[in-house]
Amino acid sequence: MKRADALEVDADRLWARLERSAEIGRFRSTGLSRLALSPEDKQMRDQFRDWARQAGCSVEVDHVGNIFARRAGLNDSLPPVAIGSHLDTQICGGRFDGVLGVMCGLEVVNALNDRSITTRRGIELIVWTNEEGARFSPPLMGSLAFAGKLPLAEVLGTRDEAGHLFGDELERIGYAGKARLGDHPLDCYLELHIEQAPELDRGDCDIGVVVGGYKTLALAIELKGETGHSGGTPMLERRNALVGAGYVIAAVNDIGLAHAGEQARTTTPRIACFPNLPGIIPEHVRLIVDFRHPEPRGFERLEAEIRAAIMTAAAKARVTASVSEGWRWGMQNFAPELIDLLKGTAADLALPYREMLSQAGHDAYALADLTPTVMIFTPCREGVSHNTNEDIDRARTLPGANLLLNAALRRANR
Amino acid sequence: MKRADALEVDADRLWARLERSAEIGRFRSTGLSRLALSPEDKQMRDQFRDWARQAGCSVEVDHVGNIFARRAGLNDSLPPVAIGSHLDTQICGGRFDGVLGVMCGLEVVNALNDRSITTRRGIELIVWTNEEGARFSPPLMGSLAFAGKLPLAEVLGTRDEAGHLFGDELERIGYAGKARLGDHPLDCYLELHIEQAPELDRGDCDIGVVVGGYKTLALAIELKGETGHSGGTPMLERRNALVGAGYVIAAVNDIGLAHAGEQARTTTPRIACFPNLPGIIPEHVRLIVDFRHPEPRGFERLEAEIRAAIMTAAAKARVTASVSEGWRWGMQNFAPELIDLLKGTAADLALPYREMLSQAGHDAYALADLTPTVMIFTPCREGVSHNTNEDIDRARTLPGANLLLNAALRRANR
Repeated sequence: MKRADALEVDADRLWARLERSAEIGRFRSTGLSRLALSPEDKQMRDQFRDWARQAGCSVEVDHVGNIFARRAGLNDSLPPVAIGSHLDTQICGGRFDGVLGVMCGLEVVNALNDRSITTRRGIELIVWTNEEGARFSPPLMGSLAFAGKLPLAEVLGTRDEAGHLFGDELERIGYAGKARLGDHPLDCYLELHIEQAPELDRGDCDIGVVVGGYKTLALAIELKGETGHSGGTPMLERRNALVGAGYVIAAVNDIGLAHAGEQARTTTPRIACFPNLPGIIPEHVRLIVDFRHPEPRGFERLEAEIRAAIMTAAAKARVTASVSEGWRWGMQNFAPELIDLLKGTAADLALPYREMLSQAGHDAYALADLTPTVMIFTPCREGVSHNTNEDIDRARTLPGANLLLNAALRRANR
Repeated sequence: MKRADALEVDADRLWARLERSAEIGRFRSTGLSRLALSPEDKQMRDQFRDWARQAGCSVEVDHVGNIFARRAGLNDSLPPVAIGSHLDTQICGGRFDGVLGVMCGLEVVNALNDRSITTRRGIELIVWTNEEGARFSPPLMGSLAFAGKLPLAEVLGTRDEAGHLFGDELERIGYAGKARLGDHPLDCYLELHIEQAPELDRGDCDIGVVVGGYKTLALAIELKGETGHSGGTPMLERRNALVGAGYVIAAVNDIGLAHAGEQARTTTPRIACFPNLPGIIPEHVRLIVDFRHPEPRGFERLEAEIRAAIMTAAAKARVTASVSEGWRWGMQNFAPELIDLLKGTAADLALPYREMLSQAGHDAYALADLTPTVMIFTPCREGVSHNTNEDIDRARTLPGANLLLNAALRRANR
């Protein structure tokens, strides 16, 4: 391919779709609150399905609600090139996280349609269910289920905080589909996503060729003490689970700060406390601690320090701590053949890029063990994401979208 | 009064009633979960009303559900001697907190009935609504409303966490009474309560003559930061409200530990975090911090240290902190004339006592500005309270109950 042969997405069409999406579940004027399997999620799924059908795709839905929109190829016995991301958001999320990747996938289909190009392999757009994990835990639920890493029964039996069953909610929005999980092979999986960190935005290059992910582990910590009267119980006799949690939260942050120069990330995003009432010493706290590091050695140091800090905190508060492992990702690196495809295509298009690691978790991680996988990052302003002020720049987003289009075309003709 | 004239409560009857109460809202086999205005609270109120009527009392209920059971005196134009406490419990509370005081009040009436003694003034048993504040905040709600310190409309308009209105729930259990708040004067107010701290239990004396309360203040703290991605947001750019809260919780406990020798108490009993979800940095945390000290000077030092620590914690987490004052009590001391009455009566009964301060909040604090007020403490095992293992010893409880009986009789004949 020469530069003159390069295809380009229709930026106006892409932006019109992003703006339409931004209306569905709008939150605090500039953000989105579109939780998985909510009425807003249904509305956005319906919109995507309509756009995909208008673009000539056939649409299937699997048992966990993942949507597969397929543009036929010349030889449909060959596994398709898959392009995916998600349409659900955090409870107070931005307009581009996940959405941009799905809309760029649609642009691939539309751009090929515009030029009446038929590829050898089909192209399959995938919308994964519940990537965020904001309503049902864990995150990456749909892609993990598709990849055989989460049993169907476990997914369908998951409850949200209000006690609603995933399976019931999926039925309610009409997306309990008939396709069996992972029932068809994929030639490869491509995902475009905003970076959700400030490296690209603060640099002079608009494309990240994502070669792998930060090593990431979520620990579920349970602290158990004993209730008591907040007035009458002497300080030295207390077994206060929330005090243990306070020491853990403080230590986890301090450890992250101490390793900030290595780009470590340490977070306690969630706490639940019981009885959590005035006048009574808390007996039970559950925490999630999430930590990430770009280097395996650094990750190991981080993990050791955090585990030690949890035990120190529990001892100081005179409570017990039990620690179990939640999600873990970022160990696998993406497929060299696809990294080369992106780099070669970018070079042909004269698009500057940099190789980088993802700091966030993505459905691509779930797919990477199943099929050759790679990701493209585009800049988001100041790296702000999972925030209603999440924003992107059109001129700095189109290079990544065009790279996706041309790389997918090349791969689909393989 | 000579020792030979001393009246005694019927310990078997008193214990049978405590055991009956322990069946209503039983929790974790030895505890109680009997939240204000719950079906269990209604059942226990009905039981109390039945016992009071069987004992010949007339029963009235006021607009916030406080129950007044009156044993007539020779001259009912005189304000009655009031004896009160509460029947609601913490969400995982014990069997004696509040309940013992109400049952000892009933014993006063029954013991006088047994001996056909009619007093000059009437004796009024009072069950205060929602002392604990475990379902509706603030604590001491019924007694504060009776004392004119909480407006009726504010009480009726309070919502629990599920959004239920106090007024609706009061109607539902049939305790939205007709008596106006504070519609009748009281000669004095006496309250017997378990100590909820270990001083009596670990000492050699079974009666605390409570001369006042620890100075106590609850602060409502609101920490505001900004959401962000828990993977992509660099540590030094975060404004994590839960990290601010972690530093506050740790510092508040450390300050309490540093002043443990002065019997300071510092607690963060409650936390609420938003969005409180995996993958997202928390933007908003609300905390309650409750601190208590036996000495005004020590209290001032404690307050200054805690307020400074909140600001330090917020600055370190790069979040804003706003602090407002919640309940405050323990400043007023109890009535010297009633303290003298208790001491004199105890001396006549040859009952050892010690003067002490209350570490817990009680309805008596709300009454103390309205009418001469005093409290009697009885031991609770190891000071354990607001805990399902709360326990008392019969032999060590009866001296306090007998002191209440004889002091009330003496005062009612004044």
